[in-house]
Amino acid sequence: MSDQSTALSRRGVLRAGLAGAATAAGGAALAQAVASNAKPDPAITEVQDWNRYLGPGVEAAPYGKPSKYEKDVIRRNVPWLTAGTESSINFTPIHELEGIITPNGVCFERHHGGVAEVDPAQHRLMINGLVDKPLVFTMEDLKRFPGRFSKPYFLECAANGGMEWKGAQLNGVQFTHGMIHNVWYTGLPLSALLNEAGVKARGKWVLAEGADSAAMTRSIPMQKALDDCMVAWAMNGEALRAEQGYPLRLVVPGWEGNMWVKWLRRLEVGDEPWAQREETSKYTDLLADGKARRHTWVMDAKSVVTNPSPQKPLKHKGPNVLSGLAWSGRGSIRRVDVSIDGGKNWRQARIDGPALPLCLTRFYLDIDWNGQELMVQSRATDSTGYVQPTKDALRKVRGLNSIYHNNGIQTWLVHANGETENVEVS
Amino acid sequence: MSDQSTALSRRGVLRAGLAGAATAAGGAALAQAVASNAKPDPAITEVQDWNRYLGPGVEAAPYGKPSKYEKDVIRRNVPWLTAGTESSINFTPIHELEGIITPNGVCFERHHGGVAEVDPAQHRLMINGLVDKPLVFTMEDLKRFPGRFSKPYFLECAANGGMEWKGAQLNGVQFTHGMIHNVWYTGLPLSALLNEAGVKARGKWVLAEGADSAAMTRSIPMQKALDDCMVAWAMNGEALRAEQGYPLRLVVPGWEGNMWVKWLRRLEVGDEPWAQREETSKYTDLLADGKARRHTWVMDAKSVVTNPSPQKPLKHKGPNVLSGLAWSGRGSIRRVDVSIDGGKNWRQARIDGPALPLCLTRFYLDIDWNGQELMVQSRATDSTGYVQPTKDALRKVRGLNSIYHNNGIQTWLVHANGETENVEVS
Repeated sequence: MSDQSTALSRRGVLRAGLAGAATAAGGAALAQAVASNAKPDPAITEVQDWNRYLGPGVEAAPYGKPSKYEKDVIRRNVPWLTAGTESSINFTPIHELEGIITPNGVCFERHHGGVAEVDPAQHRLMINGLVDKPLVFTMEDLKRFPGRFSKPYFLECAANGGMEWKGAQLNGVQFTHGMIHNVWYTGLPLSALLNEAGVKARGKWVLAEGADSAAMTRSIPMQKALDDCMVAWAMNGEALRAEQGYPLRLVVPGWEGNMWVKWLRRLEVGDEPWAQREETSKYTDLLADGKARRHTWVMDAKSVVTNPSPQKPLKHKGPNVLSGLAWSGRGSIRRVDVSIDGGKNWRQARIDGPALPLCLTRFYLDIDWNGQELMVQSRATDSTGYVQPTKDALRKVRGLNSIYHNNGIQTWLVHANGETENVEVS
Repeated sequence: MSDQSTALSRRGVLRAGLAGAATAAGGAALAQAVASNAKPDPAITEVQDWNRYLGPGVEAAPYGKPSKYEKDVIRRNVPWLTAGTESSINFTPIHELEGIITPNGVCFERHHGGVAEVDPAQHRLMINGLVDKPLVFTMEDLKRFPGRFSKPYFLECAANGGMEWKGAQLNGVQFTHGMIHNVWYTGLPLSALLNEAGVKARGKWVLAEGADSAAMTRSIPMQKALDDCMVAWAMNGEALRAEQGYPLRLVVPGWEGNMWVKWLRRLEVGDEPWAQREETSKYTDLLADGKARRHTWVMDAKSVVTNPSPQKPLKHKGPNVLSGLAWSGRGSIRRVDVSIDGGKNWRQARIDGPALPLCLTRFYLDIDWNGQELMVQSRATDSTGYVQPTKDALRKVRGLNSIYHNNGIQTWLVHANGETENVEVS
């Protein structure tokens, strides 16, 4: 483990980059290109031989798809994690993505009873329970209800990183941190619908129920329901995808993903939490003393370096852009620090703002890599001042029985050949 | 034309909405649903008969697609507009979209020589001309160059609305205003690459050249190139789509879309504009006196109501959400006003902020419709104070020969049956 690798000044990296390029792996290809095709001659204006492409015109794809060269940018599952596909998980390829928007096609999935296939013309949202006036809405009713708005939020599964409580398990950031996505939702404030129904004074909880075969149900405290929850029908500008709850889902900003009930068909107002199957059999945290933490809804501040990571090794010496994501369910990301020596030294990463509240935040650190081993870590600080803990610090408090709410600092070991591995730092 | 339709207060619309629902078209279906399935009984907790859905699990779609019920949310072309598909246009279905992000699958296309199919491993970006040091970059070189960032921008074709100069032609906002999209780009500042090459003192222009069969080439003034242009490889978090320039395009914020050269392979620095084929045969505006406006790059402030519009008629009396988009190539949108009586009276729309610079901005007006005819218009004001003009005002200055830069106020006539038509107000 060397600590000689130093982040250069921006201008320094630029200089080093071009000097180093010709000797690095990619530099050879570059030099060849310069020699054959590229002709770096100020006078070039003629048509080049790389001018040979002719693809289909505008009629080919009314709804377009990614380039065939991007076929590896896909959701992946870990078959042994669950018994069957109807109750399973796949993961967002966060190592392949840029910025903060997750494309709808690769937003991770977690279902308790398969994907519900709902005809929007038949779908209804009922509001009942401790309300003055029970209501049933069609999708068209919702879309003409006043108050529509759009906002971006991250959604993280409580079990994101759950396999890592006992040590480094899964060799890829897609698997260790890929139960997260970040899209721009459109819908209505839940408060507008609840106010329309008229919540009775005793009404302190809302039960959200999905139209899937699991009838996924979660209890939401009234204060959160009225604060910032949304009833959303669109993500990133278009209708929700089937696997994300089409035609309607609950958005519970900053809170664990299972509460964001998909295929939302009913909201019942009650005076206490329901303790339904899917909120007692799961989503509590068993401590070392046998007691369980309950109602652990908020996703604490967390971050991870997505590049380099096991699926995205370092391929070139010289300048490299280290990149990652940070988020907090309690506010916005104030800063991210990065270590390349396993936590001994830290440097402040560049945040690619704006750092929106309850939203993925992208960070970068421009580094110069001379081929030494690296132990890469990132550490988020959110707007409340909370600092992302080490995994060991978490384990001291939570024990080793937990599945959920692992927001500990991730370590990637970059070998001298650039290959990158999921490791623990003790 | 009645002017009795009045926007109610938010609370007023809410009340009217639920009172009116039972008597309107959608209200009947709603009432039936209440009677059959919905059982608005506070005690309901059992599984409902709409609980019948079971779709595929997580292995079904590694890269997901829209629901089958959304099959009409597609790009559409107008076959007679161009001679063949290799030089053609399709349009974003903006009447179907929400918020401000355009999903990559429906971003409009305009090609001068078909879609180039470029292997990113073979692709090179050359910088040559009046520079100290000509450079050639591989895609991997660009991705490890310091300074990567992400930002959302609208891209509008100069010809958006071009068919409407002589009067109302195309009956759908997809066709009159759909040559626009708004995505979140990731890449590098063009200035960083130009600075690396070292622009000579005489270098006042940049020629951007594409790798398509048209070798699409446009001249960009150096000041703009250094100010905010980007060399981008990702849109909305994933790689550019082939039809949007995969693997690399130029981003020229606020300026006409044809300058955003796709399949970007070369940037040449020069001392004057090139007057290449695609910037002289097109993209100038012939005035009534026979002279032509040239270098008309900036897209002036513009807005349009997307709902209602001919493809999205009004279907229900009572509350309705009027919605639309506004944008300006000179800054951010400061306000949008909406008229439902053909421009006699105006009301300020609600902007669903933040109203980002050089970015689509969503606006809403909650209205109550009693079945009267409406003449719907919207009028944008940008951060420079510029107010979107009427089409007649534009024609007085530009004559009737123009194709490009039609940012006049659009009028939709909503008939008593809700059907909506593209019309002119004289």
